[in-house]
Amino acid sequence: MSSRSIEERLQRVEDELAIQRIIFDYSVYLDSRNWEGFVSLFAPDGVWTNVEGTYQGREAIMAMLGGPNGGPAEAPKRVNYYHANTNWRIELDGDRASAVSRYLFVLRRDDRPTSALAGQYTDEYVRIDGAWKIARREAEELIPTHAEWEEIFLSKVRT
Amino acid sequence: MSSRSIEERLQRVEDELAIQRIIFDYSVYLDSRNWEGFVSLFAPDGVWTNVEGTYQGREAIMAMLGGPNGGPAEAPKRVNYYHANTNWRIELDGDRASAVSRYLFVLRRDDRPTSALAGQYTDEYVRIDGAWKIARREAEELIPTHAEWEEIFLSKVRT
Amino acid sequence: MSSRSIEERLQRVEDELAIQRIIFDYSVYLDSRNWEGFVSLFAPDGVWTNVEGTYQGREAIMAMLGGPNGGPAEAPKRVNYYHANTNWRIELDGDRASAVSRYLFVLRRDDRPTSALAGQYTDEYVRIDGAWKIARREAEELIPTHAEWEEIFLSKVRT
Repeated sequence: MSSRSIEERLQRVEDELAIQRIIFDYSVYLDSRNWEGFVSLFAPDGVWTNVEGTYQGREAIMAMLGGPNGGPAEAPKRVNYYHANTNWRIELDGDRASAVSRYLFVLRRDDRPTSALAGQYTDEYVRIDGAWKIARREAEELIPTHAEWEEIFLSKVRT
Repeated sequence: MSSRSIEERLQRVEDELAIQRIIFDYSVYLDSRNWEGFVSLFAPDGVWTNVEGTYQGREAIMAMLGGPNGGPAEAPKRVNYYHANTNWRIELDGDRASAVSRYLFVLRRDDRPTSALAGQYTDEYVRIDGAWKIARREAEELIPTHAEWEEIFLSKVRT
Repeated sequence: MSSRSIEERLQRVEDELAIQRIIFDYSVYLDSRNWEGFVSLFAPDGVWTNVEGTYQGREAIMAMLGGPNGGPAEAPKRVNYYHANTNWRIELDGDRASAVSRYLFVLRRDDRPTSALAGQYTDEYVRIDGAWKIARREAEELIPTHAEWEEIFLSKVRT
């Protein structure tokens, strides 16, 4: 560590906090349907992989958001669910970085906060013009898995 | 970013971590009934808005704590509930700052940790004599809302 | 704060983030049965106290892990439970540090993420050859307590 200059060391600390912030922003923008904010977190050619598929570029990501999850933006405080981010582990490598983090998706059920879904984000980041952007995020549903989630959802619809 | 001096950049990093710490301290002091510690997090004329009302100044906040939530301090490990803080998003502006964060209130029910309440803190901070203090915190109950919470509580009392 | 040099201040910020990272790594290594990684977080003579007992030194910790919790390592994404870390409060003191943090243990039950256990870590850290290591961690189960947990578990086994 001592071989790094003060400037380099400070930059690394700033980088780590900037990426932590993106992890939080992603959740808040997603939960509040702030699609403009959400898309801006990605690099222009950034890739978002979720249970629905893989989307490359802000236009494709925006089009996906306008589909099944579409609808007008809401103030965060009005939203009846949110992603709680924990356990982010960030690895810096110059103008690139990677991170793995956990999320717990909490929603309202019977007037109570209920943990409905636990998952993991596996990310790559890139610094573009001095700002960190998501180069690639893979959002995985772990508990339940996506297959289980669909089964739960379909069984509800059928009943 | 490069136009800021090393000193300014380092100060911003320290500021962000100091405010993150206040967010944690608030929960720990509240949960362990450490009212002295809790009140000291606020600026002398700091404002605390919660479901009960709005309280300005440490004396008013202390008086409020001594009421419905009163009782002797407990060691954190003895407490059967806690606020888990996540998703803090801190904005720095010199000697002022603001933050929005989430909390999940976990309590013991049937010997299990149960998510009883999810809410949001909307904060303003001020630096006084080099130390960050809460200038204003609005604590909102979202899931359930306060009205719902009272309904749940009252229905239990009546049954 | 101003009496500290830039170097000292930057070191403190790095120290805080390094210890935060150990708190995350501990959970991820434990949940994914990465015993080599887990043991490496401790100082050579580090002490781990959990509900099973107190273990000093990496060999004793590894032997304990190979017992009731033994089994091959798994990729984190395959694991059906995880520890979510929150509310870490880190105190730095040169080459020593301490921290208290909360964890919520989330596991799969009926295909849903369920909060099964809430607890607290009380830690001491030491810097060895420039790297922070756990000198002592006391892992406490609070909700339910260990006695309650055993009662719950035993009642299930008996039924």
